[in-house]
Amino acid sequence: MRIRVDWRSSCSLTGTVLKWLAVPLAAPLVLAAYDGDAITPFVVAVVVTAVLGAALELLSDERELGQREGFLMVALTWLGVAVVGAIPFYLAGLAAGPSSAFYSLVNALFESMSGLTTTGATVMGGWDFENQSRAILLWRQLIQWLGGLGILIVAIGLLSNLMVGGAQLMETETQTRNVTKLTPQIESTARLIWGLYVGLTLLAAATFYALHLVGLGPNMDLFNAVSHALTSVATAGFSPEGQSIGAFSPVVQWAVMPFMILGATNFVLLYYISQGDFERPLESEELRFYLGAIVFFSVIVSFIIGLDPEINKGFEETLRHGFFNVVSLVTTTGYASTDFDLWTPGAKHVLFLCMFLGGMAGSTTCSIKTLRWLVIFKGLYRNFFTSIHPSAVRPVRLGDGVVEEETINDIFSYVMLAIVIFFLLTIIIVVDAARVGTTVTEFEALGAAASIFLNIGPAFGMAGPMDNYAGFPVTTRAVMVVMMWIGRIEIIPVLVLLLPAYWRS
Amino acid sequence: MRIRVDWRSSCSLTGTVLKWLAVPLAAPLVLAAYDGDAITPFVVAVVVTAVLGAALELLSDERELGQREGFLMVALTWLGVAVVGAIPFYLAGLAAGPSSAFYSLVNALFESMSGLTTTGATVMGGWDFENQSRAILLWRQLIQWLGGLGILIVAIGLLSNLMVGGAQLMETETQTRNVTKLTPQIESTARLIWGLYVGLTLLAAATFYALHLVGLGPNMDLFNAVSHALTSVATAGFSPEGQSIGAFSPVVQWAVMPFMILGATNFVLLYYISQGDFERPLESEELRFYLGAIVFFSVIVSFIIGLDPEINKGFEETLRHGFFNVVSLVTTTGYASTDFDLWTPGAKHVLFLCMFLGGMAGSTTCSIKTLRWLVIFKGLYRNFFTSIHPSAVRPVRLGDGVVEEETINDIFSYVMLAIVIFFLLTIIIVVDAARVGTTVTEFEALGAAASIFLNIGPAFGMAGPMDNYAGFPVTTRAVMVVMMWIGRIEIIPVLVLLLPAYWRS
Ligand SMILES: [K+]
Ligand SMILES: [K+]
Repeated sequence: MRIRVDWRSSCSLTGTVLKWLAVPLAAPLVLAAYDGDAITPFVVAVVVTAVLGAALELLSDERELGQREGFLMVALTWLGVAVVGAIPFYLAGLAAGPSSAFYSLVNALFESMSGLTTTGATVMGGWDFENQSRAILLWRQLIQWLGGLGILIVAIGLLSNLMVGGAQLMETETQTRNVTKLTPQIESTARLIWGLYVGLTLLAAATFYALHLVGLGPNMDLFNAVSHALTSVATAGFSPEGQSIGAFSPVVQWAVMPFMILGATNFVLLYYISQGDFERPLESEELRFYLGAIVFFSVIVSFIIGLDPEINKGFEETLRHGFFNVVSLVTTTGYASTDFDLWTPGAKHVLFLCMFLGGMAGSTTCSIKTLRWLVIFKGLYRNFFTSIHPSAVRPVRLGDGVVEEETINDIFSYVMLAIVIFFLLTIIIVVDAARVGTTVTEFEALGAAASIFLNIGPAFGMAGPMDNYAGFPVTTRAVMVVMMWIGRIEIIPVLVLLLPAYWRS
Repeated sequence: MRIRVDWRSSCSLTGTVLKWLAVPLAAPLVLAAYDGDAITPFVVAVVVTAVLGAALELLSDERELGQREGFLMVALTWLGVAVVGAIPFYLAGLAAGPSSAFYSLVNALFESMSGLTTTGATVMGGWDFENQSRAILLWRQLIQWLGGLGILIVAIGLLSNLMVGGAQLMETETQTRNVTKLTPQIESTARLIWGLYVGLTLLAAATFYALHLVGLGPNMDLFNAVSHALTSVATAGFSPEGQSIGAFSPVVQWAVMPFMILGATNFVLLYYISQGDFERPLESEELRFYLGAIVFFSVIVSFIIGLDPEINKGFEETLRHGFFNVVSLVTTTGYASTDFDLWTPGAKHVLFLCMFLGGMAGSTTCSIKTLRWLVIFKGLYRNFFTSIHPSAVRPVRLGDGVVEEETINDIFSYVMLAIVIFFLLTIIIVVDAARVGTTVTEFEALGAAASIFLNIGPAFGMAGPMDNYAGFPVTTRAVMVVMMWIGRIEIIPVLVLLLPAYWRS
């Protein structure tokens, strides 16, 4: 056992990521130049990330990470990219405050962290949507897509080995435990995922644009097609349109749904499908549970909004809005097909609960994830059984295998931790609101806390899908930045850093 | 291992309880005769319970219960007593519907189950408070007191051995595991608890009435003093006053608090205190955690309401209302010193979270209980440690001992189960409300579900402390009756009955 955590290695790998961040930053730079908009925000960001990245990289040429170094590298990378990603927003004056630099800085960082963590919560008001350049809007979309790719690589390649909160259960081809030399494995997994992810994104963009070309999506031009392809496959949710997917035709709304669903499907299963193997996906209990949950909650929401004559404008429309917004929240995308904040409370409440589900493990999805819920339900059922037959041994089965007891405990512990932090965040939100005299209702606080910490995006009331988070006190937003960061990388990689034992032997 | 569950033994013991229920039913009968009010409701109830009880008792003369028989006996007893307890309410027309018998039956059963489970949620409107006899009001108080006594006996004598959700951790003198012959032990524990419980109730009644005699509680007459002693020590919450404890003077409000706190304190610790041993209670980590949580949340709530000039009428009053209502909800009593439903959303939200705490294990309290939360927090902290040092063995300590891993898992599983059922109940509430076209807001649904399932009593909106549950659809109230029952006896004794394996070998 090494005496101390090798923080230099972690920083060095984060440096490599930052250095390469200059490449995707070139895309909005080129677009800004093409459109004749300001290029300075992107030039500065490219220079900063290249210099900072190269400098950090020099800290170590050790490329092997243990468990602790992996945690640190993940935490640092998400923080570092979010900070660099905020530079263009800050320099372009996105959602800038009238006077306070702190206010503008927090907003730029909020938008960037919300992007990178694929949360999709925005501080952009109507002014920003109308006046920000296409380059800035593209960077918002692109950082989400990068965030989705990053989490895929971490979830399948890294955290599955670090065994965080039961993620090791995920169906991966690289299911080995207690791996200490992670890097080669990450690289091979990364290549595989990269191909699938790019392919899926191109397919989405082609589909959306094709609808435009045949006249079914009048305003789904190339920029919009690419922009929404980037953030649907990443289950991320930013849109250059203030009305989100509600700005587009019903056909487009239906067409977006499968891409959100695919983005939240285990990429190992997608890999099998891409190889023509449909048997394994069909056998996946988690896939059935995930799709079943979507149908279950969509039917409930459609039923409730169908009862309201103010919302129910016909069968197709009711079903479309019911399914779209449930799919959007279960997959943690956070698009909206309509302002669901205007729905009856019952429908909004069910949407709120959907936020806690999440899609499949090993995908771009956020939140708790269906794999964990499946194991929890199976574990609870098993525990009923053992509470009447204490001496019986009855393992929890998943697919062909048996879930180890340690894994079950990890999952219960993880979900409980998430719920505890979620509740703490709601307390911070209401106390901070009371402090500055802002009215935040109980459900607004619950919805915003869930949406931020579980990386969904929109919530209800002033965090509603057609509104934005600028209504909260700036101090609350600063806390939310941290919470999006913690939530996206599954809590533990950040929280262990606070433990003295982490830094000691 | 016995082949089948011995349901006759369980029914027989439930019969004994029902037979003896005739004795406390005599108290309101006598009061009704004394006041010249209708005695028929009580005469019918006495006859039914005596006959039914004696008949059930004949089913078996086996007095030894195994684990499965214990679960069944507890579930049947709470159901049976609630049904018998509803008879006087039904015959007296308490919260009766204008036409439908189902409506009146559900309301009578709701009030009775809410009483027995020490929930304290009421369907009584202003008419009932003004027109029901003192005898009916006394029976409401008395059934709560009996429910508190019953749960004490089960919690310390029975469930602690049945090892439900980690209750075996509780500091009891009778800490033996895997006991199959429970009855003698229950009887000795029952006598000890009975003495403490009666003593505490008498002390409360004497204190309240003394305040009246010295002029500090003008309307705290003997009937009110006894009534509130019965339901404060039982952390139950019914009041013959529509304004709850808000109907009384500030001094009385302060005086009620310690009795709620004592009612939610582990009775084994109270036993030590009654023997002059203060050392053990002072060493109890759970006691410190419980009192610390009360102070923590009281300060937050007082802070929030103190910022609102409409509510803040001075330091003493703000602190009194902050502490009173936090104490009331953390101990799961459910009294109110003022209509906290009129408070700012932030304060209400913190009160909502307080509901999930509960007082100490081995008391009359409901909800999750501080013992479980303490183990969860310690378990989560330990898991951070092992997530960076997977090979390290680091047991969770509580007081002098080590908490077994199996117990920790039981507790995580129990709390997760409670949270899942709580969320399901909120879905039932909003869907049922949508079905009949009643507007139930998201927070009303969340608050009512928590308050019902965790056996608190009041919540927010139409379930607020100065309102009642009659505003919900009658079908929702029927579901709530079942949920109060399941919640009070810690879920598992009811849910295992649904398991085919329970009834087989
Ligand atoms: K999202
Ligand atoms: K109560």
